[in-house]
Amino acid sequence: MSFHIAVVGGTQVGFDAALLAEEVGREIAKRGGVLICGGGEGVMQAASRGAREHGGIVLGILPGSDRCGGNPYLSLAVATGLGDARNAIIARTADAMIAVGGGYGTLSEIALALKMGKPVIGLQSWKVEAPVQMERSIIHCQTAAAAVETAWRAAGAG
Amino acid sequence: MSFHIAVVGGTQVGFDAALLAEEVGREIAKRGGVLICGGGEGVMQAASRGAREHGGIVLGILPGSDRCGGNPYLSLAVATGLGDARNAIIARTADAMIAVGGGYGTLSEIALALKMGKPVIGLQSWKVEAPVQMERSIIHCQTAAAAVETAWRAAGAG
Amino acid sequence: MSFHIAVVGGTQVGFDAALLAEEVGREIAKRGGVLICGGGEGVMQAASRGAREHGGIVLGILPGSDRCGGNPYLSLAVATGLGDARNAIIARTADAMIAVGGGYGTLSEIALALKMGKPVIGLQSWKVEAPVQMERSIIHCQTAAAAVETAWRAAGAG
Amino acid sequence: MSFHIAVVGGTQVGFDAALLAEEVGREIAKRGGVLICGGGEGVMQAASRGAREHGGIVLGILPGSDRCGGNPYLSLAVATGLGDARNAIIARTADAMIAVGGGYGTLSEIALALKMGKPVIGLQSWKVEAPVQMERSIIHCQTAAAAVETAWRAAGAG
Repeated sequence: MSFHIAVVGGTQVGFDAALLAEEVGREIAKRGGVLICGGGEGVMQAASRGAREHGGIVLGILPGSDRCGGNPYLSLAVATGLGDARNAIIARTADAMIAVGGGYGTLSEIALALKMGKPVIGLQSWKVEAPVQMERSIIHCQTAAAAVETAWRAAGAG
Repeated sequence: MSFHIAVVGGTQVGFDAALLAEEVGREIAKRGGVLICGGGEGVMQAASRGAREHGGIVLGILPGSDRCGGNPYLSLAVATGLGDARNAIIARTADAMIAVGGGYGTLSEIALALKMGKPVIGLQSWKVEAPVQMERSIIHCQTAAAAVETAWRAAGAG
Repeated sequence: MSFHIAVVGGTQVGFDAALLAEEVGREIAKRGGVLICGGGEGVMQAASRGAREHGGIVLGILPGSDRCGGNPYLSLAVATGLGDARNAIIARTADAMIAVGGGYGTLSEIALALKMGKPVIGLQSWKVEAPVQMERSIIHCQTAAAAVETAWRAAGAG
Repeated sequence: MSFHIAVVGGTQVGFDAALLAEEVGREIAKRGGVLICGGGEGVMQAASRGAREHGGIVLGILPGSDRCGGNPYLSLAVATGLGDARNAIIARTADAMIAVGGGYGTLSEIALALKMGKPVIGLQSWKVEAPVQMERSIIHCQTAAAAVETAWRAAGAG
């Protein structure tokens, strides 16, 4: 089965970050990966659009109770009805995660993925400093292509 | 978006029930529906196989933490890591549910779907008697074709 | 640690069922048990009141996001924010379950508890008929005292 | 109802951090607060012990399926069976959160609490730098007494 890459980020997003997220989605689709996301607006919608417009598959894991409540670029949507607890499902289902910017919801997804041993790549995203030495951390990249390339290699090694 | 029909039932299943579940999967695929299931063996696997062999899409919502832990006929799988709590997500995501036989896990999915106002069709499945008059109940059918036909009409009316 | 007994039932309840639920709560408190419930109104509130008025401890596991959104007789409340998925947590935390009447939500709690191997006692509650022979089923009782006595013995044997 | 303060931190913990967590638990108990935690070892156990030894109430919200699987200082335990998704319930139930050290699980709890608008106080814990300006952030304190005092004031203002 192809790699499942989660793309996470804020629901409100500037123009540059939206372009970046769209390019991430496009690169995932080009490689035949499945894009997992929270199914909402902002970074999620931009990445979903980028993937769908290049023939990719996008799976939205929604916090709400309505399967049709996601952005219009989802191939399939799961209505979890769990609110923020659904963030753990996104991390659990992904082979690797790419974070574009993001607020505290995104930070929780990053942290859950790292706790589960999944590689996390950051694009203009959170910087964190642990109180103790950690085995793995966010890998910061500068471009969408580098982020997806890194996600692919890390997921393959996982 | 096409209807999402959950097919639920036990992980251990006799030959007749497996054939029935497979036919349910086939009928859902023929109508262009998405088949939602728990992603496991038994009824879930038989229905998944029936759908996939007729070009259908099957989404497995797994109780465990490994996305690859489902049956081999899933188009996409979500690793919830929630154990039995994932039953609520199956009910939530479905437009209608078809139960083939089943044990207590299946009964919980039936009950959750009915609580959420989703139509539930039973094939050789649970019979329940409420302590008070309920607005809706399990619709019992005799054949896979009738069950899927009933699910379609009920989902459309929902 | 003392037994944890879940009391489940509908949010809307007639006078007789409320008295019954209150007596169940009282009997649990008299035996030093912890009463687990969904924290809402109806059967949950009546049982909670019965327990608290006799010095018992009541733990409410709420579907919503507000810890203070439960009935006024809870000793402690957990805000799960999970909606109906929290039913699995009630069943998981209980050593035994007593169902008083109830709708489909209650039926899902009964089914989840039985799936997890927990004893379930019914008082004027659901009657279910499985498609196959099951190892355990709902134990029907006629009085609150008998229900609690049965729960105690079954939880001890579990 | 008294304030509910979550104490989060790693399951493996050095001697100094354990003393710090124990003192946090003690201070919460002295003020009549309810201590919420994940119910495990390390920081959770130290804080639980500190609270219980001073007459406090400790509610453990466990990731596993066994209500008795928590540390020995819990007044009550909830077996969620949700794995890491239970972190959202800890954040949801708390009025404020105090993080002592911690790994990625702790970081996810911090992030979820901040997303939900709950005050978070850090003691020798994570430092985070957001990609954009955030309304609220971790409040860093130097002593257990200051952390609890800050949690109290912030929870009261929330």
